[in-house]
Amino acid sequence: MNKQALYHKSDSLYSFAVDAETVEIRLRAGKGELSRVTLVYGSKHKFYLSRSTAEMDLACSDGMYDYFVKRLTLEDKRLAYVFYIQDTDGNKYYYSEDGATESYDFSLAYYNFFQLAYVNANDVMPRVDWLSNATVYQIFIDRFNGAEPPEPESRDKDYINMKWGDKPTPKSFAGGNLDGITEKLGYLCDLGINTLYLTPIFTAVSNHKYDISDYFNVDPHFGGNAAFERLMAECKARGVRVILDAVFNHCSENIAEFRDVCEKGKASPYHDWFVIRGDKPIKKPLNYEVFAECDYMPKWNTANAEVREHLCRIGEYWIKRYGIDGWRLDVSDEVSHGFWREFRTRIKALGADKVLIGENWHDSRSYLMGDQFDSIMNYAFTKAMLDHFVYGKLDAAGLCDRLNGLMMRNFTQVNGMMLNLIDSHDTHRFYTLCGKNERKLLNALAVELFMPGAAMIYYGTEIPLEGGHDPDSRRCFIGREHPFAEKVKDLLAYKKDTAFSGCDVKFTAENGLTVIERAAAGRKLTLIVNNTDSARTARGVRVMPDSYEIIEAEAEN
Amino acid sequence: MNKQALYHKSDSLYSFAVDAETVEIRLRAGKGELSRVTLVYGSKHKFYLSRSTAEMDLACSDGMYDYFVKRLTLEDKRLAYVFYIQDTDGNKYYYSEDGATESYDFSLAYYNFFQLAYVNANDVMPRVDWLSNATVYQIFIDRFNGAEPPEPESRDKDYINMKWGDKPTPKSFAGGNLDGITEKLGYLCDLGINTLYLTPIFTAVSNHKYDISDYFNVDPHFGGNAAFERLMAECKARGVRVILDAVFNHCSENIAEFRDVCEKGKASPYHDWFVIRGDKPIKKPLNYEVFAECDYMPKWNTANAEVREHLCRIGEYWIKRYGIDGWRLDVSDEVSHGFWREFRTRIKALGADKVLIGENWHDSRSYLMGDQFDSIMNYAFTKAMLDHFVYGKLDAAGLCDRLNGLMMRNFTQVNGMMLNLIDSHDTHRFYTLCGKNERKLLNALAVELFMPGAAMIYYGTEIPLEGGHDPDSRRCFIGREHPFAEKVKDLLAYKKDTAFSGCDVKFTAENGLTVIERAAAGRKLTLIVNNTDSARTARGVRVMPDSYEIIEAEAEN
Repeated sequence: MNKQALYHKSDSLYSFAVDAETVEIRLRAGKGELSRVTLVYGSKHKFYLSRSTAEMDLACSDGMYDYFVKRLTLEDKRLAYVFYIQDTDGNKYYYSEDGATESYDFSLAYYNFFQLAYVNANDVMPRVDWLSNATVYQIFIDRFNGAEPPEPESRDKDYINMKWGDKPTPKSFAGGNLDGITEKLGYLCDLGINTLYLTPIFTAVSNHKYDISDYFNVDPHFGGNAAFERLMAECKARGVRVILDAVFNHCSENIAEFRDVCEKGKASPYHDWFVIRGDKPIKKPLNYEVFAECDYMPKWNTANAEVREHLCRIGEYWIKRYGIDGWRLDVSDEVSHGFWREFRTRIKALGADKVLIGENWHDSRSYLMGDQFDSIMNYAFTKAMLDHFVYGKLDAAGLCDRLNGLMMRNFTQVNGMMLNLIDSHDTHRFYTLCGKNERKLLNALAVELFMPGAAMIYYGTEIPLEGGHDPDSRRCFIGREHPFAEKVKDLLAYKKDTAFSGCDVKFTAENGLTVIERAAAGRKLTLIVNNTDSARTARGVRVMPDSYEIIEAEAEN
Repeated sequence: MNKQALYHKSDSLYSFAVDAETVEIRLRAGKGELSRVTLVYGSKHKFYLSRSTAEMDLACSDGMYDYFVKRLTLEDKRLAYVFYIQDTDGNKYYYSEDGATESYDFSLAYYNFFQLAYVNANDVMPRVDWLSNATVYQIFIDRFNGAEPPEPESRDKDYINMKWGDKPTPKSFAGGNLDGITEKLGYLCDLGINTLYLTPIFTAVSNHKYDISDYFNVDPHFGGNAAFERLMAECKARGVRVILDAVFNHCSENIAEFRDVCEKGKASPYHDWFVIRGDKPIKKPLNYEVFAECDYMPKWNTANAEVREHLCRIGEYWIKRYGIDGWRLDVSDEVSHGFWREFRTRIKALGADKVLIGENWHDSRSYLMGDQFDSIMNYAFTKAMLDHFVYGKLDAAGLCDRLNGLMMRNFTQVNGMMLNLIDSHDTHRFYTLCGKNERKLLNALAVELFMPGAAMIYYGTEIPLEGGHDPDSRRCFIGREHPFAEKVKDLLAYKKDTAFSGCDVKFTAENGLTVIERAAAGRKLTLIVNNTDSARTARGVRVMPDSYEIIEAEAEN
């Protein structure tokens, strides 16, 4: 046995509460090396006296490691445990905080057992159920649809500088607005969408509006606050949820507070709201912190308590005033953990079902332990889809390994809230990357819809829109009928109708095909995806190249 | 190379800020398997364009793994990085979030590089310097010393039920009090102590007072608030810091709030302050949560915001009113993370140098990431000392491996604040466990004093007191002159005079001896400990059995 491959930490991804009565224990070991894993557990204060045992299941493998998992319903909320493991050569070990040893002294176990010292209800990370069943449509507003407001003369169109449908440049304004979304809400609902994620709607000079100068007002180009009120009313009427984009890492240099600092330097009460080395902000050489290399987007200093309070109030305002359902958090990994903890507390006080979704592209367990976000945009999933369907780096077995590995990156309930996506306004469009192969695009969407968590569709995917690097990925939506939309609609309807239950999923490669199993209300649902160039059979079902099949069966008990 | 032994996670113990400008990166690998590790790093937003490299040092080994470490001073606070590693067979790999691969595509690195997305100043965990140099004396108050208050007639002695020096029972009261500590403060300062840690001083019926019924008043047996005021005045005058014991997991059934619930059931405003299944608390069968099996110590429900506020106010009160220097947190691992986050925020607002030390016996990184405690009682160190000096499970090499492993459990700055101990009121006395061998006891204390962090001496160790399982470990202190005390004094003086700088330490076994190196103001200090039964030589110095030697040298530059 490769002892160095063994891994477990208590009070971590490997040991956590799923709910107030249930804990999940995971043990990592070298792939194929253990024949049996027994969890030896008991009440912390009596562990030296009495213990129970439970066999752990080999839940999945990521190609390098096997993961053994056990969910326990707790009788005592103070759990102590060690592992008793047997390798394929018949060697037996105890595995504790002191590592793998041939014997183990239970009388001194209080020094080195693993533990969940006490499962406190307020530490348990809850799953927000609606997010698990969400079909999310991401809209880059300037490019989706422009419509007239009830008083058409109130609409300013002078800023529009491109013809709808032309190729956008970084400075293009096409005239999409919130009334345009309201107008198309019926279309989106018909497509199977139940949630909107809108890129920023707040006052900003750019077309993307990530450089906000007024967080309390909708940009006039998008129709102002009245247009948002109309959109929200229509969404409520149709049962569509709305997630807005919170840009709290940085703002615009045009915002009042930054302008005050530019004018008064350290005499401004807002000097410490930003991170400025010196008196006044200077652009060359840059003496203040900004987003990326953009001197027009100064970074908020969340070490300042007033800034934290200000941003929390913004977060609260749009929920209280308009009833939005949550926030997507821009550049969230560059904002302090401390701020996000405060922000979560403030937002969840307004409703446990208000969601917080980080824009974190990387392994983000430090944000997803229950004290900060519910979810992130699952770009690691995007990369797996690209490696399988586009770059040819992962065959079906490799894809299953990768996806299993991603499942082991986070709590199970977090997996069930992931915002899965294959592209966004920040990537090339998947359709373009896969060589405009509609069948591959549909296959990738099928996998996305079978993933635990929400499925996000970037606007226009259904028609399907092309798009390379930004700004090309932000082309204008064309309201045409397209046969591909019917296929997307079928898939979205499938997610809606099946209502996958729970966060569990099983990925298996069979005969070069990817097999994904989920559960839903007494049924077992199996997706089989063929990304090879020949017809192949898995689970007894023949699947054509670049196609998928779904099998439904009664769940086994 | 054993790929399965490789381990790194960003924004974790393996990747963290030491201060606002410096980050520490750690990579774990199989012992002896890598010949070279290069950190390839750059600014996150430009990583695809330009990168720097830095060789990583093999910092230590725990017997199973080698740990490569690099501290970087950041020019850009947005760090992206991957590792370029070479094994002893000459094979070369890149190691990223996607694992070890022979090639690496930097143009797609934004999907899978490791990162510290942005080092926000308010997320950096600071070291409280005084704690690194603290020599802490833990006092179990009823057994240390009883003295008359200024108005002797005010002292109640009727509760005392044992003769000073007799063997204690669980129900014994010997009469130690706070004036007794004040009386001996000169003695303790002379011994080299600069910090007191007192077991609970608050009103409670037991001798140990972990069953508190009034958190705002000192127990009359201990002399009441006036006696504590006298003790604090004397401590301030002598520059001695004081840490009190915060029992926030549970309280006494005699506390007013619990009594109200016993009387009124769910009609009591305090019903939700505890965790009760039903209307009123019932003992048989127990229907409420308690500490361990003790029905007279109901557990606080920190899911209740009023409880959190109440306990935070207690924590603040003793700092504001009496100026104490911090809290040791009883049964802290069973209290919710959420509460401790609030508590830290409240306490640190009163002074960044107020310390929070958890009673966590196990791997506690989930409490020590900067948002909860500064430190814990280092019982894992206790176990290592026992395994080496008492149980014979670890030779010098094994001890060094174990201690290196412990160093890699936490941030470097946390290592520098650990409350190291070889025994306490909750263990057998080390002196008894090592067969009353003063030389072994002294050797263990020498190792403790060379550890990064604070050194804790359990009262009476210096004389030395015997003691088996509680209550035997809580015998009465005898104010006798004892030659062993002079040796302890020499050691404590050494820690005080040298003022170890930084948190770095090096553990090496040489010729069966344990060699521990620290730095202090331009000097290198080396402790060599012989726990064998023969005289041996290491670093050119001959060390007798059960003895230690200290070498001082100019630091190399």
